[in-house]
Amino acid sequence: MPTKGQRTRAEIVQRSAALMNRQGFFAAPMAAVVEATGIQKGGLYRHFESREALAYEALEFAVAQVRARFMQALQGRSGACEQLLALLDAYAGSTGDVPFEGGCPIMNTAIEADHAHPGLRLRAQQAMSGWHGLLQRIVATGVAAGEMRPGTDPKHVATVFIACIEGAVMLAHLYGDASHLNAARSHLARWIESELRQPPGASA
Amino acid sequence: MPTKGQRTRAEIVQRSAALMNRQGFFAAPMAAVVEATGIQKGGLYRHFESREALAYEALEFAVAQVRARFMQALQGRSGACEQLLALLDAYAGSTGDVPFEGGCPIMNTAIEADHAHPGLRLRAQQAMSGWHGLLQRIVATGVAAGEMRPGTDPKHVATVFIACIEGAVMLAHLYGDASHLNAARSHLARWIESELRQPPGASA
Repeated sequence: MPTKGQRTRAEIVQRSAALMNRQGFFAAPMAAVVEATGIQKGGLYRHFESREALAYEALEFAVAQVRARFMQALQGRSGACEQLLALLDAYAGSTGDVPFEGGCPIMNTAIEADHAHPGLRLRAQQAMSGWHGLLQRIVATGVAAGEMRPGTDPKHVATVFIACIEGAVMLAHLYGDASHLNAARSHLARWIESELRQPPGASA
Repeated sequence: MPTKGQRTRAEIVQRSAALMNRQGFFAAPMAAVVEATGIQKGGLYRHFESREALAYEALEFAVAQVRARFMQALQGRSGACEQLLALLDAYAGSTGDVPFEGGCPIMNTAIEADHAHPGLRLRAQQAMSGWHGLLQRIVATGVAAGEMRPGTDPKHVATVFIACIEGAVMLAHLYGDASHLNAARSHLARWIESELRQPPGASA
């Protein structure tokens, strides 16, 4: 059983993540963190050694939430094309909801960090590489299994996939309009079917 | 001839834009603005009524720089497909440089603003709509001229185009690696040729 202190700490991380994914992991003002968590500044510093340490834990939590959603989407899906389509649905599903309020925490952090916050940038790189690497492995497995066309470049597919989805998440958030997500989803789904999937009967 | 005061003002805007496009139009600390412009806080407030007013002018300047680059790329290009390809080159050219240091100011502002800064968000929406609208008009003209396939949806094309480029700009900046831009460029160029351009000899 977690102690009361552990439960409080976990709740601070969760609420900070929701706030910081909208207002910035470093940029969200301390007053907003106090308001979102319902805990005074002194109380926050009893649980976290610094504002920065809290930001990093909140980011880790947000990224883990998104990762959990992707992993759940992959459950029971076999075949590279089906896995890519399942990930598309998880990110840009017909309901238009996104895995985490405020958009993709990795993209948000990538933009926020740029060159001003090397520690934050490094964490965004690591999280993005996890996502990019997962897609590359799916494609490489699909090519090896003869399910995707020979010569398909896993890195190229992973980059186009992520770029298109992340850009669409940004547009959907900017306008409050999920149709941008649907456009990216249908574009990528069509690309998978018309250019990546090995046509049935083709020699592998 | 601009006065000395006007020149100073223009220089403040330009230097602030370069700084804020990396560190955030609202998030960049005042101390960093002072350092980047070489002008003390009191001096800045003689030229701009508020930190916010300076941020909005800097954003407007950054967006105008990007727009100028696109307009230049379109010079002398006729035909919708050629115009789309020229815009792709302008954004994700083989040199790997981008129109403005720190990435796309519209995307950066879209991410920074989210729900925390309605004024900033509105400006990001307006700037993005200018870019989205330009692409829609190019596609609509191409369809009307029989150069692009009938039934091509200008809004869909504009969204996919922007999403893929903006996402790739984000990845290229995150990793300091222009190959992500090249991937998006070759994907979209191939899409234009294989799915959007009306094949020669096809009935319009």
